Amino acid sequence: MEHLTISDDSSGLADVPGFALAGVACDIRGQGTDRLDLAVVFSASPCTAAGVFTRNVVKAAPVTLCRELLERTSDFHGIIANSGNANACVGSQGMTDAKTMAKLVEQGLGVPTGSMFVCSTGRIGRPLPMDRVEAGIKKAVACVESTPEQSERAADAILTSDTRRKTITVRFRHEHNVFTVAGMAKGAGMIEPNMATMLAFVATDLAAPSSLLQGVLDQSVPGSYNAITVDGDMSTNDTVLVLANGKSGVRLEKPSGGLYLKFCQAVRAVNNSLAEKIVSDGEKITKVVELIITGALTDEDAGKVARSIGNSLLVKSSWYGEDPNWGRLASSAGAAGATFDPDKLNLSYGDIPVLVNGVRQEENAARWKEIVRRGRFTVRIDLQAGDGEFRLLATDLTEGYVNFNRSE
Amino acid sequence: MEHLTISDDSSGLADVPGFALAGVACDIRGQGTDRLDLAVVFSASPCTAAGVFTRNVVKAAPVTLCRELLERTSDFHGIIANSGNANACVGSQGMTDAKTMAKLVEQGLGVPTGSMFVCSTGRIGRPLPMDRVEAGIKKAVACVESTPEQSERAADAILTSDTRRKTITVRFRHEHNVFTVAGMAKGAGMIEPNMATMLAFVATDLAAPSSLLQGVLDQSVPGSYNAITVDGDMSTNDTVLVLANGKSGVRLEKPSGGLYLKFCQAVRAVNNSLAEKIVSDGEKITKVVELIITGALTDEDAGKVARSIGNSLLVKSSWYGEDPNWGRLASSAGAAGATFDPDKLNLSYGDIPVLVNGVRQEENAARWKEIVRRGRFTVRIDLQAGDGEFRLLATDLTEGYVNFNRSE
Repeated sequence: MEHLTISDDSSGLADVPGFALAGVACDIRGQGTDRLDLAVVFSASPCTAAGVFTRNVVKAAPVTLCRELLERTSDFHGIIANSGNANACVGSQGMTDAKTMAKLVEQGLGVPTGSMFVCSTGRIGRPLPMDRVEAGIKKAVACVESTPEQSERAADAILTSDTRRKTITVRFRHEHNVFTVAGMAKGAGMIEPNMATMLAFVATDLAAPSSLLQGVLDQSVPGSYNAITVDGDMSTNDTVLVLANGKSGVRLEKPSGGLYLKFCQAVRAVNNSLAEKIVSDGEKITKVVELIITGALTDEDAGKVARSIGNSLLVKSSWYGEDPNWGRLASSAGAAGATFDPDKLNLSYGDIPVLVNGVRQEENAARWKEIVRRGRFTVRIDLQAGDGEFRLLATDLTEGYVNFNRSE
Repeated sequence: MEHLTISDDSSGLADVPGFALAGVACDIRGQGTDRLDLAVVFSASPCTAAGVFTRNVVKAAPVTLCRELLERTSDFHGIIANSGNANACVGSQGMTDAKTMAKLVEQGLGVPTGSMFVCSTGRIGRPLPMDRVEAGIKKAVACVESTPEQSERAADAILTSDTRRKTITVRFRHEHNVFTVAGMAKGAGMIEPNMATMLAFVATDLAAPSSLLQGVLDQSVPGSYNAITVDGDMSTNDTVLVLANGKSGVRLEKPSGGLYLKFCQAVRAVNNSLAEKIVSDGEKITKVVELIITGALTDEDAGKVARSIGNSLLVKSSWYGEDPNWGRLASSAGAAGATFDPDKLNLSYGDIPVLVNGVRQEENAARWKEIVRRGRFTVRIDLQAGDGEFRLLATDLTEGYVNFNRSE
């Protein structure tokens, strides 16, 4: 992927020509602080869009609204998003409030009804403080601009228990043009397979039909947002949105060819990077563990094994303790409901074998310990049952996580 | 069930006529302590037996051996069990050692080959210290007796991170006879649906064919051992064994009639009690929460919702914090993969409504808080989608659990 330039030194979506942002404080949490909590993403040029959403039966109102918008229309102008309140489990008030947010920002920016997406993240079960939200939207509309400063403020405004901003910019050249794909995200808690409690907004200056954009997004999700786990909890609000405003003057018409492949790679790079930033900033974690499962009967079996291990409290606690307790790994693999023969199990920490055909390599024990002391390490498991594979980024579980989540 | 006498003041299996026990210390953990770690259960009269085992693909050798024994023969004389080492994931050495344990105790007690079950629990992945195990078996054989003292020592010897002994005795009268069913168990970590890291041994003085005994055991497991969760981890060693020695002189021939029904109730009462003792003594827990899910499309859906909630780290952390965070409960219910309409969800803490048809009953908030402060409370969820139901006993998740399981 040498034709991609991946820049972690990204200010986020303002890196994409034609996108302007704002991040403001309107005290949605009601704590009297000036914490940034409301973000606007805006493109004066109309965009096509694609989205992927939580599969939770209990969905926040903004998720339902975004899905409806995606079915109805294609001329989008951006996103209004808030942190501090999920606008979930509040009955019919939820949809009323989500629609009011959209209307206020659409009127303020002078764009058509139904052209702004709405996203919320934060505490479930409390109505939005709409007086403060309304004041915040007025303030945000007044300061929307295409500057690194507002772009970073917007990226900060969607954070909840995250400890750091999550932005990424990827540029790629095709023929005589340079294109940009940039993203911003929030993560931290309720992070698990099938989307995390996460919002991710991705923008590009390519033009592309919605259906093509959706295809590009869909192929990037299984290996990014659906391949991370912090605590195994699936949220009510998970949303990934991609906006393409066509400012580059180049339109991608078909899902084939050199430009298409580069664009797919760029979107994948952005989403992989945001997913990695999310898991690395999991609530109170101390370690990121890459689980690479190979040799499963099917990819689905490999995923089951990876998730059984990555969500095991005993495994995660032992990672926290830097204990190379491979017995818990083997036991979790066995409990996954996947088909394999334990007497053929290969397992290693990094490149140091632990089990070879189910037999312990005890002479390596000191080196296992070295590896699990690292802040990031890899566990490889080969089930020797087929060609299925899955890669999952997981974390340890700490006393800090439990204490942090005792109450909100 | 007024004809059952349930006695928590039980010394365990010696309460059943014809059963003798021993509990000895042989330092299986290699820590130089005199902690009890080897137990013998013995009946001079031959027994029929039934068993239920872990569904983990990675099974400890003793589990495989017990399953083979149950298929082969019916004249059993008891169980040899150790704590401190699971005899799991040690390759072919595991079966060799399990068979040696059986042979040593059979020779010592003068009973036929293949008449003693073998169970192990403890750390995975280390070979048993067979020299010390052999010494322990010799010591145990010499002190097997039908006394409360040895019965309690045996119940203590199978404990690992448990903080207390788990025994129960149930007596019931039928016509002119009094029958006894008694049990002992260990639990504590790796406790979850589909059997916990648990051993449970149940004995009775009824006589019954193995197949009938198996049926009675099978009907009691879904509502007892498979309806508890501490940490969602399925162990390599889970085993429940029932032994029937016929000392009462009464033989149950058919799965019908008054005696059969009373026996079923007695076995259920023993297993429910042991399961409850296991979950109540979960590692470092502070609360037991009874989740009663009703109105699901199917019982399976109800079970999914109960387990999704009972294994959610966020839910369990909030219970620890005594925070009535029903939003996390609703979100976990929605993530379970069960079919229901969130706008029909009824949820209550104890008898205090939280959601009625999906609408918050905010005026009750102070009373929710009172309930979640209790050491044991009930959460009721009615999905209003059908007649399916499931009851799960779950626990909170504490910083103590994580710290305790950092290393072994």
